[in-house]
Amino acid sequence: MKSGEIDEHTAVAQLEHLPVENLGFARLDHHRALRCGHPEVVYGAGKTPDQLAVIVPRLAALSPTVLVTRAEPAAFEAVAAAVPDAVYYPTARAIVVDRRQDRAGEGLVAVVAAGTADLPVAEEAMLTASLMGARVEQITDVGVAGIHRLFAVLPTIRAARAVVVVAGMEGALPSVVAGLVSCPVIAVPTSVGYGASFGGLAALLTMLNSCANGIGVVNIDNGFGGGYLAALINARPEDDHA
Amino acid sequence: MKSGEIDEHTAVAQLEHLPVENLGFARLDHHRALRCGHPEVVYGAGKTPDQLAVIVPRLAALSPTVLVTRAEPAAFEAVAAAVPDAVYYPTARAIVVDRRQDRAGEGLVAVVAAGTADLPVAEEAMLTASLMGARVEQITDVGVAGIHRLFAVLPTIRAARAVVVVAGMEGALPSVVAGLVSCPVIAVPTSVGYGASFGGLAALLTMLNSCANGIGVVNIDNGFGGGYLAALINARPEDDHA
Amino acid sequence: MKSGEIDEHTAVAQLEHLPVENLGFARLDHHRALRCGHPEVVYGAGKTPDQLAVIVPRLAALSPTVLVTRAEPAAFEAVAAAVPDAVYYPTARAIVVDRRQDRAGEGLVAVVAAGTADLPVAEEAMLTASLMGARVEQITDVGVAGIHRLFAVLPTIRAARAVVVVAGMEGALPSVVAGLVSCPVIAVPTSVGYGASFGGLAALLTMLNSCANGIGVVNIDNGFGGGYLAALINARPEDDHA
Amino acid sequence: MKSGEIDEHTAVAQLEHLPVENLGFARLDHHRALRCGHPEVVYGAGKTPDQLAVIVPRLAALSPTVLVTRAEPAAFEAVAAAVPDAVYYPTARAIVVDRRQDRAGEGLVAVVAAGTADLPVAEEAMLTASLMGARVEQITDVGVAGIHRLFAVLPTIRAARAVVVVAGMEGALPSVVAGLVSCPVIAVPTSVGYGASFGGLAALLTMLNSCANGIGVVNIDNGFGGGYLAALINARPEDDHA
Amino acid sequence: MKSGEIDEHTAVAQLEHLPVENLGFARLDHHRALRCGHPEVVYGAGKTPDQLAVIVPRLAALSPTVLVTRAEPAAFEAVAAAVPDAVYYPTARAIVVDRRQDRAGEGLVAVVAAGTADLPVAEEAMLTASLMGARVEQITDVGVAGIHRLFAVLPTIRAARAVVVVAGMEGALPSVVAGLVSCPVIAVPTSVGYGASFGGLAALLTMLNSCANGIGVVNIDNGFGGGYLAALINARPEDDHA
Amino acid sequence: MKSGEIDEHTAVAQLEHLPVENLGFARLDHHRALRCGHPEVVYGAGKTPDQLAVIVPRLAALSPTVLVTRAEPAAFEAVAAAVPDAVYYPTARAIVVDRRQDRAGEGLVAVVAAGTADLPVAEEAMLTASLMGARVEQITDVGVAGIHRLFAVLPTIRAARAVVVVAGMEGALPSVVAGLVSCPVIAVPTSVGYGASFGGLAALLTMLNSCANGIGVVNIDNGFGGGYLAALINARPEDDHA
Amino acid sequence: MKSGEIDEHTAVAQLEHLPVENLGFARLDHHRALRCGHPEVVYGAGKTPDQLAVIVPRLAALSPTVLVTRAEPAAFEAVAAAVPDAVYYPTARAIVVDRRQDRAGEGLVAVVAAGTADLPVAEEAMLTASLMGARVEQITDVGVAGIHRLFAVLPTIRAARAVVVVAGMEGALPSVVAGLVSCPVIAVPTSVGYGASFGGLAALLTMLNSCANGIGVVNIDNGFGGGYLAALINARPEDDHA
Amino acid sequence: MKSGEIDEHTAVAQLEHLPVENLGFARLDHHRALRCGHPEVVYGAGKTPDQLAVIVPRLAALSPTVLVTRAEPAAFEAVAAAVPDAVYYPTARAIVVDRRQDRAGEGLVAVVAAGTADLPVAEEAMLTASLMGARVEQITDVGVAGIHRLFAVLPTIRAARAVVVVAGMEGALPSVVAGLVSCPVIAVPTSVGYGASFGGLAALLTMLNSCANGIGVVNIDNGFGGGYLAALINARPEDDHA
Repeated sequence: MKSGEIDEHTAVAQLEHLPVENLGFARLDHHRALRCGHPEVVYGAGKTPDQLAVIVPRLAALSPTVLVTRAEPAAFEAVAAAVPDAVYYPTARAIVVDRRQDRAGEGLVAVVAAGTADLPVAEEAMLTASLMGARVEQITDVGVAGIHRLFAVLPTIRAARAVVVVAGMEGALPSVVAGLVSCPVIAVPTSVGYGASFGGLAALLTMLNSCANGIGVVNIDNGFGGGYLAALINARPEDDHA
Repeated sequence: MKSGEIDEHTAVAQLEHLPVENLGFARLDHHRALRCGHPEVVYGAGKTPDQLAVIVPRLAALSPTVLVTRAEPAAFEAVAAAVPDAVYYPTARAIVVDRRQDRAGEGLVAVVAAGTADLPVAEEAMLTASLMGARVEQITDVGVAGIHRLFAVLPTIRAARAVVVVAGMEGALPSVVAGLVSCPVIAVPTSVGYGASFGGLAALLTMLNSCANGIGVVNIDNGFGGGYLAALINARPEDDHA
Repeated sequence: MKSGEIDEHTAVAQLEHLPVENLGFARLDHHRALRCGHPEVVYGAGKTPDQLAVIVPRLAALSPTVLVTRAEPAAFEAVAAAVPDAVYYPTARAIVVDRRQDRAGEGLVAVVAAGTADLPVAEEAMLTASLMGARVEQITDVGVAGIHRLFAVLPTIRAARAVVVVAGMEGALPSVVAGLVSCPVIAVPTSVGYGASFGGLAALLTMLNSCANGIGVVNIDNGFGGGYLAALINARPEDDHA
Repeated sequence: MKSGEIDEHTAVAQLEHLPVENLGFARLDHHRALRCGHPEVVYGAGKTPDQLAVIVPRLAALSPTVLVTRAEPAAFEAVAAAVPDAVYYPTARAIVVDRRQDRAGEGLVAVVAAGTADLPVAEEAMLTASLMGARVEQITDVGVAGIHRLFAVLPTIRAARAVVVVAGMEGALPSVVAGLVSCPVIAVPTSVGYGASFGGLAALLTMLNSCANGIGVVNIDNGFGGGYLAALINARPEDDHA
Repeated sequence: MKSGEIDEHTAVAQLEHLPVENLGFARLDHHRALRCGHPEVVYGAGKTPDQLAVIVPRLAALSPTVLVTRAEPAAFEAVAAAVPDAVYYPTARAIVVDRRQDRAGEGLVAVVAAGTADLPVAEEAMLTASLMGARVEQITDVGVAGIHRLFAVLPTIRAARAVVVVAGMEGALPSVVAGLVSCPVIAVPTSVGYGASFGGLAALLTMLNSCANGIGVVNIDNGFGGGYLAALINARPEDDHA
Repeated sequence: MKSGEIDEHTAVAQLEHLPVENLGFARLDHHRALRCGHPEVVYGAGKTPDQLAVIVPRLAALSPTVLVTRAEPAAFEAVAAAVPDAVYYPTARAIVVDRRQDRAGEGLVAVVAAGTADLPVAEEAMLTASLMGARVEQITDVGVAGIHRLFAVLPTIRAARAVVVVAGMEGALPSVVAGLVSCPVIAVPTSVGYGASFGGLAALLTMLNSCANGIGVVNIDNGFGGGYLAALINARPEDDHA
Repeated sequence: MKSGEIDEHTAVAQLEHLPVENLGFARLDHHRALRCGHPEVVYGAGKTPDQLAVIVPRLAALSPTVLVTRAEPAAFEAVAAAVPDAVYYPTARAIVVDRRQDRAGEGLVAVVAAGTADLPVAEEAMLTASLMGARVEQITDVGVAGIHRLFAVLPTIRAARAVVVVAGMEGALPSVVAGLVSCPVIAVPTSVGYGASFGGLAALLTMLNSCANGIGVVNIDNGFGGGYLAALINARPEDDHA
Repeated sequence: MKSGEIDEHTAVAQLEHLPVENLGFARLDHHRALRCGHPEVVYGAGKTPDQLAVIVPRLAALSPTVLVTRAEPAAFEAVAAAVPDAVYYPTARAIVVDRRQDRAGEGLVAVVAAGTADLPVAEEAMLTASLMGARVEQITDVGVAGIHRLFAVLPTIRAARAVVVVAGMEGALPSVVAGLVSCPVIAVPTSVGYGASFGGLAALLTMLNSCANGIGVVNIDNGFGGGYLAALINARPEDDHA
């Protein structure tokens, strides 16, 4: 056997003692926050307010930070009844519980939005990265059709450990940004646009085909995913000398 | 009836006296060059060398300029036997007959190619615009991932009456160029790329969704169409005070 | 270095002194109207009435003409409270501020709509071209299935410097028009249709694949883009002898 | 039970006595020609020359006319060894056995091809309609970008009982033709084109979305299907007074 | 010149004397009904009730039959105020004016619907074929998963001169029917279905790829187009001996 | 003739005596339940409450079990007025009539849902399999991103004769499950997701391309189809020694 | 915890002792054949002949049956040098090692191919099912356009425990078959076809949207997957009373 | 103005002094290696051997490491004539010049390939990451259908700062890996597969829709992009305190 493959027993053993709570309609991992220091995250779409009102308080008891994405106001009302310190961000449609004592953040994640209409996705990315411990700067309305607007904010972008670039329509901004910075760029296509944007497909394809280097792409409108990956890159944990 | 609609008789009368020669496999319009001063253009794909060897000399007898696009070397050989002054451009895969006395051209069309691999399409655009009477400048390898390369050539681009921008992969260059010039931009997507470029679809969608103003898009790899439209804009004929 | 590439310093210098106002959710270019004489244009979709009520008066202070596209009536009400001379065009869903003394227009742009249902897009094109200084003529309901209706209006179309052709369903009208005129044709596919029109995709593909010459295509339902490009072609500015 | 539904027994009885010969790799219906007077048709693609050399002579023994579509020259050689009077049409890639005494045909089917490159599909349509008993006229290179070429041949087209219109690229010709004739139009899209024609998809969608009336569409490059349907319409059998 | 091409002058002359009334938002052909004996047809989607209330009475003055497809109840109310004998068919969403003295119809068109949910499209086909002078029989719920239900109605289907087959989901019914009849089959895919039916695309592709002969396909949900083409085939006008 | 083909007469004879009731908008097979022991199933979408109120009682008179899928509450109210013992399952949107004396079920079908939002589809699968005579176990929220949750329930899954795996988003769960069990896996993609899930297309493609063996895929959101196929596999009828 | 979830330790323990041999370019599971009695299967595409010549003999030492799918003749030559009793099936492009003493098979799997061109996929399905212990009957050329051919072979099909239906083009055969049998149907779309078959997509969508019950679909041209799933259903192992 | 936006002048000044060499068919950035310490990378596809033989030696004079991707053997021969120490990696189709004294690498990037056929893409990722200064470990053939194979190598994967996961077919491996590690995962879909994999589209969509967190996706078959992004994350440069 090759090196690194000898600890299969250990790997499996880790898996088999993980505590999981079965609610019937959902299973909660009681170990995840302990392991990672990351927030508990719930995908709100497709869950009823009643289900969320059961899930969120249980997670809030396990972790100092909880994030519910794609939550409608009615869901927030149900959650807030059970978790009074929950906060709702209407632009991002996010419910946040944040009981950390120190929210200053370390490192820097820049979140760049091409246009005003991309703000909901950008704000979701910002909230996510912030809850994961990053310091975050947001920059808006620097689309490629007015390239000088981007130059004005380059120093801020270049100070970041990871840049999240959010863009709809033709989605060309990540290519230009990645050519101007030396850190990883997380490209988030949005469904902003009409006609041949096909719900964000055009922006997604643009980002996947970028001739610039150092770009990773996430799903259309997935601000959470973009913020999460950027914060992971920003975190720089100690190496595990396995 | 509204103004402008009274001359139907005249319009139809123009149509009915147009001379057309029927070769069986093709019909040649003997009036087109007279009317427009444009080259006779033949779409070479799907025509056999034998068919082209019949068509080209007939057109060359009618017009001082003939262009055959998408012609393979075997087609050129057949044509050259009948039209000895025909010239072959292997990069563009074009056969050209050019018997004009003055080829200097008027106005300026700039043809900008994002990468080296886009050159065949760009060269087809250049040949077309040149045969239609434009002065042409070509600029290559100024993709958006290295935006400073574009700035170095901006003065040339800004001097043009129309700019043809040829780009594959993510196809973002027309958006950036259109934000920096004040003349029309003709965007030509190319099939350069792989994977999720889907044969040029990604670049095409990018160009159609551009948030920059003043962009018209043509078909994937349609260098001819891009050069033709740019030259038409460049020509600025006298107004017809109908 | 090749000719035309020597003025990089000048090009960049132009960019770095451009005044930009950062509203947080949007950045306004205070120099654009000065440079171009074009209207300030705002893409209304994805912006709240409150945001538009901030943006439009600032732009109206800088430029005699402002155009907001894809604006709902509620947006107009918010804007009109701040800019009393703003006008709403419900068919085109456009807000217009037009303080020019002379609105007669120069040159001619023809806007041709294939069917009655294409009127909203055609009207957006007309408003745009008119605000950019063109004289505009509109022609409606001349689809290819009744080709004689087109002949009746040919003289008007042939008098134009640029023709905008708006069509949904099979989108074949630009091909026929481009075969009958000698000026550039801007093809605007619309989402009019059902079933296999796939939201305008069918018309878009038809226009991109046209066997007629001199056609540039814009995004589905992008009347603004079609009118803008046509007006740019119509304008014929003095050549810049850079 | 409603009228017309009482003869189920008869319908099924017809089915159960139909003679079928099982060759292992194919089943031959020995009754089809008797019932219809139509040629036996074999789809040649995906069948080996050896298989065709078994199938064709058996069919030729049953029916005076046999058509093999999409047959390569090697297939023809194998077939000709067994059926000496078989004829190969290389443009259409068709093998034909035609032992009818009277090939004059009745009625008229017009086969109209938009361009030279559409000829292989048009020829397949012509052969099919002819073998099915129609008189056929072919017209080529009358694309919509030069609409006057179509007018020159209108009288021929208008004399037909059914028109097959074959077109690639933007595929707009059937719409224009259907607006000018009063008989059914069978639209055959071809894969002629490049880029955003997507192998004939653009032409197919155009034809399906036609705003003209009286058009039926067949598969891309399906000249056989177009000719077959047109000949069926042309035939006008006596009504079955069931 | 080839035979049949000599009458260009006549063809064009027919076009140029056709009376057209321009309403601004629509152009009405005053000659169409005279030429064809077909109903005046208006595509209701995308037209306002006010526009329809102008168009329909003018057409009803010219032709004994008028059909408005895709009309909402509000449109009918506006039309009925101007044309009291207009009738609304809610399943088909059609407005019909029918002032013919003899509505019996000649020949036979069978309209076969695969399932109950396909009835709106089938009814549109029936109304259309009936207004065009055909006798019509409708058969419903004979999908291919219960093939014996089809056999029970075969005699009715076989008596028709043309069969319209309406089917959603997998859309296989036209293939089976075309294998059992000898007349043309018009296949109408519907958007009935979910998931991978992609709004009728699955049924459309099935019908286009049918291995049965004699099938012409129309657009998804285009009951009108299916009924029109079938009635055209059914009509069998005298040959024009041009 | 080959073996097995001699009983054509018998096969057809079975078909022709099948009793079918024609309601005009639907045809009811009165023999199906007798033959199979399966529930009568009605696809509720596209049928009006009135139509269902006619169909369901007739089926309930023929079969002890009736299932209406995709039924809205209004449809249930109409049905319940005619069939008082009908039950509505709102999550699955299903109407069930179950008059069996023994509902215990034989064998075991496991229904595994990747996430909470997949529950409506999973419940439809469960109801279907249960009505068809299977014992059913449901397992929820065991997505592949937390693979240890799946291990906890493996023994239940491995006891089944067939496993239905319901998953949206990336749809990877069936691949992992099929690698861990030895019975057939029925994969049901759901439309749960956003952006590049394209309404379930992503999950569907994942399942079709699985590198695991023993997977059959049904349509997006087709819980009924998944449950039906699993129950059919579970049933293991006696072999028919034809 | 719910029932069935208590044996997580056991499940994981099974996984961690599984012997895997790492060849660098591939990992061989030495336990799989022991557990299942199924053949070792290698996906030949994308593996070099040299790699296969290493893999196959190792697997043949572990299992009495080995199947390599999508293997070119050169691959077979390399394998045969190492495993002299390997057999090549050129139609299916499969390499088979079969050292079982009893190859008679139990139960019955019917493999039905719509057309001659579908035979390669059908043969792959047959080989797979046979190697997995099923008795197999093959039926070819019974497409839906000649439905009587299917009736002739119904008794054979009805005797099977599972039916594999292989079809290209419109892919309608599984729907018809599933309506006539009571066992599961495995639908295998093939890439046979042209034009709008889009490489088998049309057939795939047809099968996924079938209105017949009891159909599971596998990937395009995946004869192996179809045969595997059918054989799994055919096998009916003893229930595991976990 | 907001903080961070004041240094526009500096940003632009950096751009305008960048040395670029114009070869006519390409522009070489002479500053890039100096700025970044990254290898010079050339996209080989679409460049002729002659062009590469000009480009590579110039880059090798500027940077100690040069990588040419997608290079055919003929391209290598041309390059090797000019740069004798260039090395060709045939599996990855890469030309490498590596003149670094220390190639040990820092940090760790794990490159995981789902199957043997994914090796070319994985090797490209490995070469790229290694040239950018990372230590790299490769793991092959751990697809999700045999999940135990993945557990055996988990410790190696968990020791990495970034993991590149390369997978074709259903592309589910990144989801499973991302659920088991806490570092970023770069997902690289490959075109390995057939049928409904649509050239890698299925794997791409799977990865974009992953329900696991911390995944960035690159283009299909873009091993270079995956390796580049992983190495960028691995590098962890000092923060720029702008």
